[in-house]
Amino acid sequence: MNNKQITLKNRPKGTPDKNTWQIQETPIPELEEGEILIQQHYISLDPAMRGWMNDTKSYIPPVALDSVMRAGSVGKVIKNNNNPNFQIGDCVSVWGGVQQYIVSDGQGCFKVDEKVAPMPTFLGTLGMPGMTAYFGILEVAKIKEGDIVLVSGAAGAVGSIVGQIAKIKGCRVIGIAGGKEKCNYIKNELGFDAAIDYKSENIYTALKRKCPKGVDVYFDNVGGVILDAALSKLRMHATVVLCGAISQYNNKTKINGPSNYLSLLVTRSTMKGMVVMDYAKDFGKAAKQMAIWMKEGKLKSREDIYEGIENFQETYNRLFTGEKNGKLILKVIE
Amino acid sequence: MNNKQITLKNRPKGTPDKNTWQIQETPIPELEEGEILIQQHYISLDPAMRGWMNDTKSYIPPVALDSVMRAGSVGKVIKNNNNPNFQIGDCVSVWGGVQQYIVSDGQGCFKVDEKVAPMPTFLGTLGMPGMTAYFGILEVAKIKEGDIVLVSGAAGAVGSIVGQIAKIKGCRVIGIAGGKEKCNYIKNELGFDAAIDYKSENIYTALKRKCPKGVDVYFDNVGGVILDAALSKLRMHATVVLCGAISQYNNKTKINGPSNYLSLLVTRSTMKGMVVMDYAKDFGKAAKQMAIWMKEGKLKSREDIYEGIENFQETYNRLFTGEKNGKLILKVIE
Repeated sequence: MNNKQITLKNRPKGTPDKNTWQIQETPIPELEEGEILIQQHYISLDPAMRGWMNDTKSYIPPVALDSVMRAGSVGKVIKNNNNPNFQIGDCVSVWGGVQQYIVSDGQGCFKVDEKVAPMPTFLGTLGMPGMTAYFGILEVAKIKEGDIVLVSGAAGAVGSIVGQIAKIKGCRVIGIAGGKEKCNYIKNELGFDAAIDYKSENIYTALKRKCPKGVDVYFDNVGGVILDAALSKLRMHATVVLCGAISQYNNKTKINGPSNYLSLLVTRSTMKGMVVMDYAKDFGKAAKQMAIWMKEGKLKSREDIYEGIENFQETYNRLFTGEKNGKLILKVIE
Repeated sequence: MNNKQITLKNRPKGTPDKNTWQIQETPIPELEEGEILIQQHYISLDPAMRGWMNDTKSYIPPVALDSVMRAGSVGKVIKNNNNPNFQIGDCVSVWGGVQQYIVSDGQGCFKVDEKVAPMPTFLGTLGMPGMTAYFGILEVAKIKEGDIVLVSGAAGAVGSIVGQIAKIKGCRVIGIAGGKEKCNYIKNELGFDAAIDYKSENIYTALKRKCPKGVDVYFDNVGGVILDAALSKLRMHATVVLCGAISQYNNKTKINGPSNYLSLLVTRSTMKGMVVMDYAKDFGKAAKQMAIWMKEGKLKSREDIYEGIENFQETYNRLFTGEKNGKLILKVIE
């Protein structure tokens, strides 16, 4: 039984291409005492992966060349060599990387309950993107009822949850997304108050029309032009949460800094960075709350699942072209 | 008796020039009941003035065309038509504008005590720049003993006070200033731990050498390249205080946004804007504390005083060329 793996061959400049990764097959090693073998079903594809490939100081070390590409995943325990914490058939979430199998001593493996939600949801709403949204909007932005909340990447894995939680908490929510389908989705399915299609509308004009009173909170997943436009709409004592900057991750030259950053000064506002891992000790509590909201129909989840580990690169690039609907996932079980 | 005034004739694009302002003489009006006449001695020249000339939404309305250029000032009451709160000879600080005399009903006039400090100090350390430094470093940055504090414009009116207060509070302080004289001044006279001469050193290299452990607080008066370099040195949970962006105020095109802003995300840091007026109710308390520090020799004040209202434009431009030593002031009494 072989394990198909995607390894990092070359650090990309700009957008990853066919030279970035390589697929390889390796035999699955024998389990040592206390180890389990997990067959991975689904791999999470996230914008953060782009940062992990750069050889620069960041919140975690870069993926080493020739090692398996880092990724979150869910799968099932199919072998167990005397690890008392797991049983064959257990469903687990793990940093399993882009591969079909992973051997683990159980550290960093979390059991998930398929009765609560289907497996892919544990990579989305009940996984890292959901946790990011939950802690970002509640703990970092500290939204209050009545706040005007603007979120970019609003149809994406994080943004869609940010907006829905803000709605649950009684905020007015405006989402920025690319394309009509996504805008309809966040308005009609997710209950956002308004949507801005940055692909067909001038962002400044649209913000003027849809946020005439400005915004109390801007949750930024994209950076670039949209961050700049949002900064121009801050109300007094507003908060900007920096969660990501997908528009800038493939830049070959410098990142475009927000030209309107002095709006923070004029409006006495705050721009804060966040990294979801800082809230790890409260993930369980958050997941419980989100599961309740899902059951109540207040929080909807959407995954866009592609198949086949050999399609990893092509699928990954959808993160940046926007050709996906909801949380992007790759099914690697054959 | 005539009043020489500087009025705003044209909104400058880029650096103000001879077409920006006009000098005029107008007769001093008779005082109405309750009014006082103040003869202004010193006018405060501040980077913020540049922003007040732009016709854009900001924290206060722009200076209207053909009206007297806005400025803080100190002077003495020389006439009083039954205002019970003032006496002839009282020394007052006021938003008097760039002119020699001002008629006031007393609103916004604050008596200052020449026994505490000479008049120009009430435009510097005991005036707006001092208040900005005090509240910026204590209330916005919330420095703690042992923090590593980096400040730009470190020999200037705000920066020099920021650094000295941080030293008083037990921080390690590194100042960025332009030129050898200024760097020697902040190190040898003001007791900063280190100085970086951005005019003769590469800022990134110098920061690496002088802040090897990074910085907990960066107090930004300048924006541009220096802000960007400082962002690259943030420690975890650092704070960037946005006080100004003098390097960008005369830009004819867009402001250069900080390309390294995602460092806020990686380090979970916060960038906060501040406007000193928000702390007005506590100015008295702060001035009292700062006067004590001055008396104890812990807080030094330096003003660079030029003479003659007709030299306003030329003197003002020293703010941006850096050709000044300490708080820039124009003496307008003849």
